[in-house]
Amino acid sequence: MPIITLTTDWNANDYYLGAIKGKIFSQCPDAVIVDISHQIQPFNIHQAAFILRNTFSNFPVGTIHIIGVNTEGGHDRPFLIIRYENHYFIGTDNGIFGLLFSVEPEMILSIKTKEKIPGFSGISVLTDTACKLFNGVQPESLGTSIKSYKKRIPIRAAIDESVINGSVIYIDSYKNAITNISRELFDRVGKNRPFEIFVRSNHYMIDKINNFYHETSPGEILAIFNSIGLLEIAMNMGNVAELLDLSVNSSIRVKFREE
Amino acid sequence: MPIITLTTDWNANDYYLGAIKGKIFSQCPDAVIVDISHQIQPFNIHQAAFILRNTFSNFPVGTIHIIGVNTEGGHDRPFLIIRYENHYFIGTDNGIFGLLFSVEPEMILSIKTKEKIPGFSGISVLTDTACKLFNGVQPESLGTSIKSYKKRIPIRAAIDESVINGSVIYIDSYKNAITNISRELFDRVGKNRPFEIFVRSNHYMIDKINNFYHETSPGEILAIFNSIGLLEIAMNMGNVAELLDLSVNSSIRVKFREE
Amino acid sequence: MPIITLTTDWNANDYYLGAIKGKIFSQCPDAVIVDISHQIQPFNIHQAAFILRNTFSNFPVGTIHIIGVNTEGGHDRPFLIIRYENHYFIGTDNGIFGLLFSVEPEMILSIKTKEKIPGFSGISVLTDTACKLFNGVQPESLGTSIKSYKKRIPIRAAIDESVINGSVIYIDSYKNAITNISRELFDRVGKNRPFEIFVRSNHYMIDKINNFYHETSPGEILAIFNSIGLLEIAMNMGNVAELLDLSVNSSIRVKFREE
Repeated sequence: MPIITLTTDWNANDYYLGAIKGKIFSQCPDAVIVDISHQIQPFNIHQAAFILRNTFSNFPVGTIHIIGVNTEGGHDRPFLIIRYENHYFIGTDNGIFGLLFSVEPEMILSIKTKEKIPGFSGISVLTDTACKLFNGVQPESLGTSIKSYKKRIPIRAAIDESVINGSVIYIDSYKNAITNISRELFDRVGKNRPFEIFVRSNHYMIDKINNFYHETSPGEILAIFNSIGLLEIAMNMGNVAELLDLSVNSSIRVKFREE
Repeated sequence: MPIITLTTDWNANDYYLGAIKGKIFSQCPDAVIVDISHQIQPFNIHQAAFILRNTFSNFPVGTIHIIGVNTEGGHDRPFLIIRYENHYFIGTDNGIFGLLFSVEPEMILSIKTKEKIPGFSGISVLTDTACKLFNGVQPESLGTSIKSYKKRIPIRAAIDESVINGSVIYIDSYKNAITNISRELFDRVGKNRPFEIFVRSNHYMIDKINNFYHETSPGEILAIFNSIGLLEIAMNMGNVAELLDLSVNSSIRVKFREE
Repeated sequence: MPIITLTTDWNANDYYLGAIKGKIFSQCPDAVIVDISHQIQPFNIHQAAFILRNTFSNFPVGTIHIIGVNTEGGHDRPFLIIRYENHYFIGTDNGIFGLLFSVEPEMILSIKTKEKIPGFSGISVLTDTACKLFNGVQPESLGTSIKSYKKRIPIRAAIDESVINGSVIYIDSYKNAITNISRELFDRVGKNRPFEIFVRSNHYMIDKINNFYHETSPGEILAIFNSIGLLEIAMNMGNVAELLDLSVNSSIRVKFREE
């Protein structure tokens, strides 16, 4: 029995969340609904994409992921069903899908809807579609195959022979700063050379990578590749983002020793 | 198998929530528990009633809704089971039921309890009752039929021939301001006449109703009938409540052209 | 079918929570996952222990409790499986278990892991272990029996013949201040003598214990033994912690009349 996950910007002190769960249980009473997050900042498709991108593959294949962020649809913004790595994603074509996937999806369907879907009523389209998939309806019967979706380009790190110019893309629960510098990129450019990591231009410098947070004393700045393989500027049991005034887009530069 | 929903003012960083879920699963292991909200402001029965009123009918009939807001009971404040539109509501007779229902419920039972239910222990009454209903016990055997509950009158919009004097009753996740002016009232008084909506006396004026939020440019004030049929003062991708200093009870007046 | 509960400091606006739930459902699709709290302050094992201690026994025996607070493990901080009152607790040996249990557990196992468990990857150890227990694997096959875990001593109230010197150990959702003075201790020292409770040295005094919050008018300070048997300094429908500037560790002294 597939799982239905929810990633939304409907804060838990609102009535939208109860409404969508009620709608799902009314149409597919056996659904297992999993809350991924309901604390996406309003309309922030970048945050929603980051969370879902780093979460979805932990679920069993066949899981149905509803994206309830900036959902308002219309003729120029259809609701889509996308199959990617055998997971289903249902949401509005507002640019989020371009941030979510690394390669082309296996299937993109534009959901057939009435001409006008006013206001928040779009959630019924999402829940109806999710429950039909859950109940075994063939996806192809729910929409028209299309070639692509709105593309948004995530900000990537820029490189030259001995430098990676990256940036912070996420501040996590512990106020650690996750960057867009992957371990793969670091290894490829660095070729095992000694390095210095500069945080916010030249304000702070780190010259080693930790294996564990607790290798470094509480309160000291450290760098670590986290569980999703991205370089993280962190502090063991401290709040590095506040102390170093780091936020999304802050500059993180890695300089390797010239050969 | 019925669903049990929870609407409480026990914030998620407290131990009450885990306790109530544990109690439910101990008594009815097959329960599907759905969190409607645990972010009701302490004792705010108006907020709880607004959320549950606009949520419950999305669930299947037979759903059991536990209300954990201002629950302390006693001789003058019995715990009630109410059947309304074939849903069950269990809570303390603290005035919330008067805000929750539009017409008389089908059944009102006062739950039999020991003389004294000290402090927070009242939640056991709620969970015991919910699980007995869940397990198929006849509601009539759980309490004594009574005629009514404490009434609280929600603030309604006042009308004359060409004016509706309403007010903000809720600020949602997107900081849009939901009013007590329904589409039905608007159409009945307005009879398709041109109109002006005045936000906070005469500070801001709107003279059209949107079908979609995104018809209006981001940052511009707009009016729309939302998914629950209430007039909403909103901003596409903006925070109208903060910008216009709107809060619950702020005045919203609609003036139709005199005939 | 056992339940798996989660108590973590991974705020709900992060991707860790979705990841752990996905991992669980991938390995034990029939799991019922219950969120106890995801709003533990980062690394605050005292808060996590307080919540779980006062929650777990409401669940059916056999429930598996995952503790996701300060989880980073290593050679000096093994991951443990502990059976206590026929519940299972899985977490890192970071001191929390000493705060969680009143008597010696029935079983303590140190989980066998690879030499290095870098960074956040430790959650896989927790979820793998929980799912193996869920799927019926014998706990003894998952780890090595050990004698003890890291002890942390919770701050206890000090007593002499006529005085209890206690302190605030928790501020709840309603901003009431829960103390470390149990009803049992109060009765044992007090022997039914008249008393005065001094809040923050001599700033505020209370000389009775309520049975109900609402016995006292809104806005007045009161004392009550709460549902977990601890003395609570509270205010009916008010915010006592803010008004009296109470926080964790604030002094609460009970003085009984000398005989």
